[in-house]
This record gives sequence, structure tokens and C-alpha cells, in this order.
Amino acid sequence: MKITAINVLDIRFPTSLHLDGSDAMNPDPDYSAAYVVLQTDGGLEGHGLTFTIGRGNDIVCKALEVLRPMLLGQNLSRFTENMGAFYRYITGDSQLRWIGPEKGVIHLATAAVINAVWDLWAKQRGQPLWKLLVDMTPEELLRCIDFRYLSDVLHPQEALEILRKWEPSKPQREAEMRARGYPAYTTSVGWLGYSNQKIRSLCRQALSEGWTAFKLKVGRNLQDDLRRCQIVREEIGWSNILMVDANQVWDVPQALEWVRQLLPFQPLWIEEPTSPDDVLGHAAINQALQGSATQVATGEHVHNRVMFKQLFQAQAIGFCQIDAARVGGVNENLAIMLMAAKFGVPVCPHAGGVGLCEYVQHLSIFDYIAVSGSLERHYLEYVDHLHEHFVTPVVIHNAHYQAPQNPGYSIEIRPQSRAVYSYPGGTYWRDALKGSSLT
Amino acid sequence: MKITAINVLDIRFPTSLHLDGSDAMNPDPDYSAAYVVLQTDGGLEGHGLTFTIGRGNDIVCKALEVLRPMLLGQNLSRFTENMGAFYRYITGDSQLRWIGPEKGVIHLATAAVINAVWDLWAKQRGQPLWKLLVDMTPEELLRCIDFRYLSDVLHPQEALEILRKWEPSKPQREAEMRARGYPAYTTSVGWLGYSNQKIRSLCRQALSEGWTAFKLKVGRNLQDDLRRCQIVREEIGWSNILMVDANQVWDVPQALEWVRQLLPFQPLWIEEPTSPDDVLGHAAINQALQGSATQVATGEHVHNRVMFKQLFQAQAIGFCQIDAARVGGVNENLAIMLMAAKFGVPVCPHAGGVGLCEYVQHLSIFDYIAVSGSLERHYLEYVDHLHEHFVTPVVIHNAHYQAPQNPGYSIEIRPQSRAVYSYPGGTYWRDALKGSSLT
Repeated sequence: MKITAINVLDIRFPTSLHLDGSDAMNPDPDYSAAYVVLQTDGGLEGHGLTFTIGRGNDIVCKALEVLRPMLLGQNLSRFTENMGAFYRYITGDSQLRWIGPEKGVIHLATAAVINAVWDLWAKQRGQPLWKLLVDMTPEELLRCIDFRYLSDVLHPQEALEILRKWEPSKPQREAEMRARGYPAYTTSVGWLGYSNQKIRSLCRQALSEGWTAFKLKVGRNLQDDLRRCQIVREEIGWSNILMVDANQVWDVPQALEWVRQLLPFQPLWIEEPTSPDDVLGHAAINQALQGSATQVATGEHVHNRVMFKQLFQAQAIGFCQIDAARVGGVNENLAIMLMAAKFGVPVCPHAGGVGLCEYVQHLSIFDYIAVSGSLERHYLEYVDHLHEHFVTPVVIHNAHYQAPQNPGYSIEIRPQSRAVYSYPGGTYWRDALKGSSLT
Repeated sequence: MKITAINVLDIRFPTSLHLDGSDAMNPDPDYSAAYVVLQTDGGLEGHGLTFTIGRGNDIVCKALEVLRPMLLGQNLSRFTENMGAFYRYITGDSQLRWIGPEKGVIHLATAAVINAVWDLWAKQRGQPLWKLLVDMTPEELLRCIDFRYLSDVLHPQEALEILRKWEPSKPQREAEMRARGYPAYTTSVGWLGYSNQKIRSLCRQALSEGWTAFKLKVGRNLQDDLRRCQIVREEIGWSNILMVDANQVWDVPQALEWVRQLLPFQPLWIEEPTSPDDVLGHAAINQALQGSATQVATGEHVHNRVMFKQLFQAQAIGFCQIDAARVGGVNENLAIMLMAAKFGVPVCPHAGGVGLCEYVQHLSIFDYIAVSGSLERHYLEYVDHLHEHFVTPVVIHNAHYQAPQNPGYSIEIRPQSRAVYSYPGGTYWRDALKGSSLT
């Protein structure tokens, strides 16, 4: 199967209108996708996207255009016969590597492209992505990983042993995933822009739907945070789980002080307390929390496996929040999941945004079946917006992600939604921008 | 003075034709600049650029286009009256921050824009950039810095004390810089693509010009490295200084082994032994070198002040190689220089590329006069190509950078060179690409 054309789309949803997604760092996001479609001569298409929050989505699209010649005209099998080599091929162009390496815009674009190839491969195999991964042997999985810069912490042999340990019992966990699905928590109750009453009613609704774990945004104003934590605890009680998320707003000393005030509410984790680059800062905060019920969680802005390696080395995190499209796609996330397994840190992926829930359900289900073998302290994020734009949206029953059945990586946006929300030429934006200087 | 128009140019020099700039990671760079010109109603222009090595330069240019509306139509004084607030304004757009934060393409573009504003301000003052900085009071300098994420390591009060310590004696060091200039080392003798004979003749020529410090690229093949180190030592002797540079090719265990083999040649530093993101890896290597004549140097790919903070905290580097346009321009480099001063680590900027020598001479001269107060173990990189394209190129006498006299940041590329090397429409590229699919 040959890749015969590559379409790049700038898709933006006007989420800022309703404060969905508002947090202490990001007051008015327009959830967006830098979107790529690999067309083939085999009748199948590979879809991939990277999530951004508005302005800058066009820069990622430009990077996708620059990557395009590396895939155009190639046979899919050239990539899938050695997915590790494919990762090195995409990330190893020395001129493009200069503007990273493996970080920021070029790595976001890398993720969309690599995930699109995985989507295409899974469709070719007629399997959902998670099942394609589960059916690989440990040796095949290892061949997908670029171990460069990891060998001081995770040797391929060590990774192989982790995978082999869980190999014989994979069928029973696969059956469990097909029957019950993967446990989730909800972020939909606690965006910063929401009123007290909206938080209360969202909590009640979520409880009635079976949710047991709830995340609240914090960090803009301490008194507000205390009030909001109080409201949520009043609604959900103390046997349910509360997480809090500061979205990088604090310096380390400020984080230590602020989080201390939130500890009476016993959050399971404090997410992104400071700069995502600050491994040693996260380590200092996590260290200060020892003996409490709370640990540090981070990852949605951690830009590659080398940064995750150090977060593990420094014992900086109690929860590892991989993102499907911040690092270099499925391949790099395999490496991160294996390191997490080695260090005994639960992988609790970042989701929400545009399509991140659709993506990461595959990674978490695979992680449970083949890498970690555990659901203890594992929760997959769920946010209930924008799913209606996907051809095969996530399905949640009783606060569990139901294992996807359709072939591929579940990331295809409906053609109608692509047409309406393409920026700036889609019908929604043509109207919305009328009279502005952008038209 | 109002910014009335902003031009963005993609400029590429075909350096790959002669292997200038070849190293173990980057075999065939085309040294390039994502270039921005701020036009004003005052008759002056602010110029800024970011250095890349070819493909991907257009992605940075796209990011410059996206930043354009933040500056267009603004008065220069709105920015210069509080340069710290200006830095937060440019880096704080929450939607654009998502695709960094403060790293990769968006931060490279940030650097070009911020440096262009500094260039314009220095021209308005009629001073070279270094002199504009030197004439600021400690309090004024502090106001240029975004201390966010630094307060656990460098408090503003601490930074103030560093600057005040050197304040009274600034005039004598300024006089010294005007008389003798800033000491440099040369990287021009040892690119990987060069033959033995070319290395020998370049060493001899450099010695005859007064050079005392020489850097060699290593890391592709150990036997080659041993041979090339031997050649350079034969030519320069043992009283002159040798540095080696691996350009990120090793994993940590491999770096430890390889560097051990090079220690008999007593390099002053091993530069970029592994991933620029690997703070703990650099720390492990630097730790292993204790007791030898060699320490770790890095910085040209270290993407912001938070990463430098950790390199200092972890005692990971003996030399701090700031880059003028990898981090967010003058402002962020002020923060990094102050942290280096606190930790007693010499700042030895990365140069070469396109215009990096022109830029960093200002930073090093300022660093000596106002921040570090020392030249001991301080060497500023020099590479002898592409200077002919600059309106006010660097001047080297007796292996010292001569303090720039012209107003501005010395970064203006000659209009003729801009016309010839604009990509892909400039006259050079129009001819070179004739018949390729890019025309």
C-alpha cells in the first residue's frame, strides 16, 4: 500500500466561547487540531492529529507540510517492517532536528505523522490500535522503540524482561478490558471558569453516572481553590477520589506553600505544579509531599522520553501522564510506558483536548494488558467535549472507557466537522471572522 | 517610534557544499537565518534572526509571521520601558505557549523578535547593545528579566547583589574591553569533514594569527578522533588549549567510555556529550570527570532558563554555553548569566552559524564588565565563515573580539546578501534549484 497524497488541515473549535478548558494558565483556549490525512492507493486512509489550543496551530501545520516529502510516495510496509527505524527516519533529519531536537512544534508534528502511520497500519490489519500492539511479541514491540539516550536507565534487555513477564497472562487481561473497560476519572466538573453552582450540579450528575474520581483546576487564587475543593468534597464525599491540577502556574517555593494548604482535602495528586521542564523542581515538591496522601503528577507538556527518564530517575512523580501527541507518537510512548513500569509509576494519560481521549484509550488498554499488568492507582482522564466530531468516538460506561472495536487509532474527525471548523476557510470561521482583519 | 511594518525573510547559505559546519550529528548543514526586520516611522530598523541549519527555517519564519501582530503598530517605548513585561508579553500568549512552552520553534522565533527589539532600542540610543546593557543600573537590568520558575535558585535580591558587586569597577573593565577585546577560541580548524592535511594547515595558520585555543569535532569514530586529537596536539602543543565537541551523539554510558579515551589529550571541555535535555546525564558525566583536566560544557541546544537552572543545580556543567537565539533573546540570557555567576560557572557562548558571533560578542563583553567580572577560563567561540554578509561584521585582532562600536546588535545582513540567499526566490537558489521540484 503506497501513500499517494497527504492532506494537512488546520481545524479549530471555538471552545473559548463557553470557557470549556479554562485553567490557571490557559484562560481562553480554542481547542484545535493540526490534522494530517495519508491517502493511499489501497482505499484506506491514515489519520493523525496533534492537539493545540488555537493560535500556533498553523505553525504545526506548516511543520506537517515540511515533513510531507518524507512520507509521500512511500510504501506503508517500508515503515511498518521496522517502526523503530521509521521513528529515527522522521526524527533524525539533521536539519529539522536542529529546531527541536524532539521538542516543540517539530515534535508535535512528528506525533501527528507517526500516529497517522499507526492508524493506517491498524486499519490495514483490521484491528484497533491497542489490539495491534497487544498481539505483537515482546521482540516486535522493542523494535518499535528508539532507545537512544535511554540506555543508562532502560536497557533493551530490561524492557524485554518486563514485556515477557506479562506475556503469558495477556489473554485474561484482554478479556477483562473487553468486558469492563478501563477506569476513568472526569475533569469536566472543575474548569476554572465555572460557577459554584455549575460545579455542584456537574458533580451530582457525574456521581449519578458512576464516576468515582474527579479533577479540579486550581492555582489562580488560593481562597477560590479552598472554596472549590470544599464544594467538591461536599458533593463527592471522602471515599471518592479528588485530583487537583495547577497547569504550571507556580514557582517551586510557591507550589510548596500552596499545595500544603490543599492537603486537608487529600487530593490523590497535584498535577503540573510548576514548569514542565523542571525535573528537579518536581522532585523537590514530590519529596516535600512524602508522608501525605498526595503525590506529584505531570506529563502533558513533558516533551520527550529523555525528560520522562529524568522524572523517573529523580523520583519526581508519583503518576506519569503521557500525552498521545506531545511526544513522538506511539513509538516514544512505548518507551515511556516501559520506563514507568520499571520504576513502578502508574501511567495515567493526559486526555481531553481534541481527540486525546480517543487516542489514549488505546495506550492505557495496551499498558494494562502488556506492560504494567495493573489497574491499581491507574486512572485515565476523561473530558466530555468535542467527541461528537469523531467518526468512532470514545464510549464510556459506568466511568470506564469501553475497549474500541473499530480498526485504527479512533482519531478520524468526521468530514462534515472538518469542513465546518477548518481555519480560517471553514463555514463556521468564515462567519465568525466576518469583518475581522483575518478574513 | 512606532513599528510600522515587519518583514520576515527565509535566508539560507549553501554551506553544505564545502562541509563547513559538519559534525557528528549534522553532516550537511545549510546555515540559515529566520530573519525579521522591524520597520519604523523613525527611520531606523530593528533586525533580528534565529539560526537554523536549513530545512525547518521556513517553519520558524511561519512562527515569526504568527508573532507579527503582537508587535505591529506598537510604539517601541511601550516595550522598552519594561523589558521584562515585554518578554512576558511575547512568551505569555497562552495559545502560543501551548506549542512550547518556551522551547523549540516558537522560542526560536521569540528570540529573533526580542533581539530585533533590542537592536532597535540600541540604535535609537546610538549605542552598541553591550554598552546599552553596561550603562543600565542593576535595578534596570533586573527589570528585563522574567524570574518565573527561577525563584528557588536565583532570587531577584540575590541577582541584584551580584550586579551591585561589580557596579563600581565597571569603567576599568569597559576600558579593558575597548583596548584589548574579549578572548576567543577557534572552531574553524576541526570540522569532521576536513582531511588531516587541512586540519594541520588550518592549525598552523591559526597559530600564526595568534590563536591559543582550538576546538575539534569528535564522536563519529573513536579511532578517527584519536588521530585527529593527536594531529591537533602535534600542531598546537600542550600549552595551548584544546576543546572537543560531540554534538549530542552519545548515550551516557558511551560518553563515559569514549571521553575516557580522549582524556590523554587533556581537552578543557567535552561539549554536548549527550542529549541536551539530559541534565542528570550531563551531571553523571561531569561527576565522572572529577579529578581530570576536563569538564562538561553545554548550552547551544539548552532551550530555556529552567533547563540551565537545573544544569547549575545538578553541577552538571563546568562551562555554560549560552546561545543568543536558542533561548528567548537578550532577556533570558541575562537570567542565565546571573545564575552562572552565582554558581561560579564561566559563560562561554556558542557562536558560529549565521550571525551568532556577531550577537554573542555583545553578551560576553557585558558579562565580563557587569556580571562575572572575570576572564579566567572564559573563551568566546569564533568560526570564520559568513561574516562577509553582515553590515558590521565581527573584528578579530590577535584572537580577541574587538568591542563593537556601531549602534545596535550587529546582526544586520547586507541587503545584497538577503536578496541573493533568500529561499527559494533569491538569485542563488533560483539557479541552484533549477530543475528540482522546488522551483
